[in-house]
Amino acid sequence: MSRMTGRLIGVGVGPGDPELLTVKALNALKSADVIAYFARPAMSAMRAGSSRAINGAEELPLLYPVTTEIPKARDAYRDAIADFYDVSAAAVSSYLDDGRDVAVLSEGDPLFYGSYMHIHVRLSRRYPTEVIPGVTGMSGCWSAAAAPITQGDDVFTVLPGTLPEVELERRLADSDAAVVMKVGRHLPKIRRACERAGCLDRAIYVERGTMTNAAVMKLTDKLDMTAPYFAIVLVPGWEERR
Amino acid sequence: MSRMTGRLIGVGVGPGDPELLTVKALNALKSADVIAYFARPAMSAMRAGSSRAINGAEELPLLYPVTTEIPKARDAYRDAIADFYDVSAAAVSSYLDDGRDVAVLSEGDPLFYGSYMHIHVRLSRRYPTEVIPGVTGMSGCWSAAAAPITQGDDVFTVLPGTLPEVELERRLADSDAAVVMKVGRHLPKIRRACERAGCLDRAIYVERGTMTNAAVMKLTDKLDMTAPYFAIVLVPGWEERR
Repeated sequence: MSRMTGRLIGVGVGPGDPELLTVKALNALKSADVIAYFARPAMSAMRAGSSRAINGAEELPLLYPVTTEIPKARDAYRDAIADFYDVSAAAVSSYLDDGRDVAVLSEGDPLFYGSYMHIHVRLSRRYPTEVIPGVTGMSGCWSAAAAPITQGDDVFTVLPGTLPEVELERRLADSDAAVVMKVGRHLPKIRRACERAGCLDRAIYVERGTMTNAAVMKLTDKLDMTAPYFAIVLVPGWEERR
Repeated sequence: MSRMTGRLIGVGVGPGDPELLTVKALNALKSADVIAYFARPAMSAMRAGSSRAINGAEELPLLYPVTTEIPKARDAYRDAIADFYDVSAAAVSSYLDDGRDVAVLSEGDPLFYGSYMHIHVRLSRRYPTEVIPGVTGMSGCWSAAAAPITQGDDVFTVLPGTLPEVELERRLADSDAAVVMKVGRHLPKIRRACERAGCLDRAIYVERGTMTNAAVMKLTDKLDMTAPYFAIVLVPGWEERR
C-alpha cells in the first residue's frame, strides 16, 4: 500500500526579533511534525526566542561542517558544503518519505540568500513544497535605522562586501540606493568605495539590526578596521523633495 | 500643561495575504488609536482581509488625488502628489498632537518603495516614530513562484520597468539576479531587454503574487503586449551546482 509523503515547508523567520515572524510562519511551525534548522549562532538565538510557538515537534538540527570565518579554499570548501547539503537533504527526505511534514527554518526570507534554497533545489521536485516568505535582514536593518531606502523609480542594488574595490565603487556609483552585505573585514574597502562613489556622506552602518543592542551610525563614524560578518551598510536613495 | 504627543508607527502589512502580517504588525494595529492608510484598490483588498485584527480604532483614509494610470506630466503631477503628502502628513499630525498613536499602513515594507516614507520624512523628526518592517511584494512573488532568487555572493538588482530599453539590458546583463517592477505597458520592452541581456530563458512573470489567483509563468510564455502595473518579472540568479 502506498503512503502519502509529507510536505516540505521553507519557513522565513525574519531578521531576528521573534515578533517579526509572520502569522503564516507561526502557524506552519505549530503544525509541522519536524522542525529542521541550520545550526549557526544567530539562528540558535532566534529559535530560543520563538520556542514557545513550537509545540512538541521533533527537532532536526543540520550542523554546518565549516563556519563563514574559515578561508574559502574554493574547491575543497565547495565540495564540503555541497556534501553537507546533500546529507541534510537526505535527512529531511527520510522524514518526508515517512509522511511527516518538515518545516525548514530560514533566517530572513528563504529564497533570498537563504540556506533553505539548498534543500529546496534538491527536494522540491520530489515532494509537495511550500515557501513562506519572511522579512529580510536588510528590511530589519533599514527599519531599525528609520532610513527610507528606495522610492519611485530608484534602481536598488544588493552587493556583497567581498567584491573587489573597483567593482564596489562602480556599482555604488551606478545605483540610486544600495545595501552592502557581509561587511566583516571588508569594512575599510567598503568605506573607500563609498567615498569614491560619492555616497559616503549618506551611508549608514548597522550591526545586529533587529536586536535590542542594535548599533546604527553614520559610516563615517565607524572608524574600525573590521566589523561583524553580518553587519551591513545602507546607502539610502531617498532625496528629500520640496 | 503640556501634553504627550502620540507615536507615529509605520506598519508593513506584507504583500497581500493577511497571514503574511508579522506578529508585531498585528499587535501595533490592535493597540493603535488611529489607523491611517493610502486608499488604492490593492490596499483596500488587503484591509478587508485583515480587518478582524483592527479593534475599534478610528480609520483615517488618505485618498490619492491621481492614479498611477494617469500620464505623469512631470511638474504638475509632482506638485499634486507633494501637496497630497503635505495634506496627509498634516492630517496624521493632528491626531499625534492630540496624544493619539497613529499606525500608517504600508503595503510590503514601509521604507522600500512605500508610500509611508512620504509621511515619515515629514513627521519622524517631530514625533516618536517606529517602523515595523514587512514582507516585500517581491518576496511574496518569488515565494509563490518557488524560485530561488539569490545565493552566496550574487549581485541583486531591482529595476523599474520604466527604464529605457538599453538601460534595462545593460543592468540585467550586469546582475546575477534581478527583479523588474512596475511591468504594465513596459512588458514587450522588458522581454526584449531580457533577451538581449541573455536572461530571457530563466525569466519568470508573476501577477498577483500572494493572491489565490496568482499567475506564474515563464516570461517567454507571456506573449501579451501589456500587463498589470504591479506585475513583476523575476530573473533568478540561482545556478544549480552539483
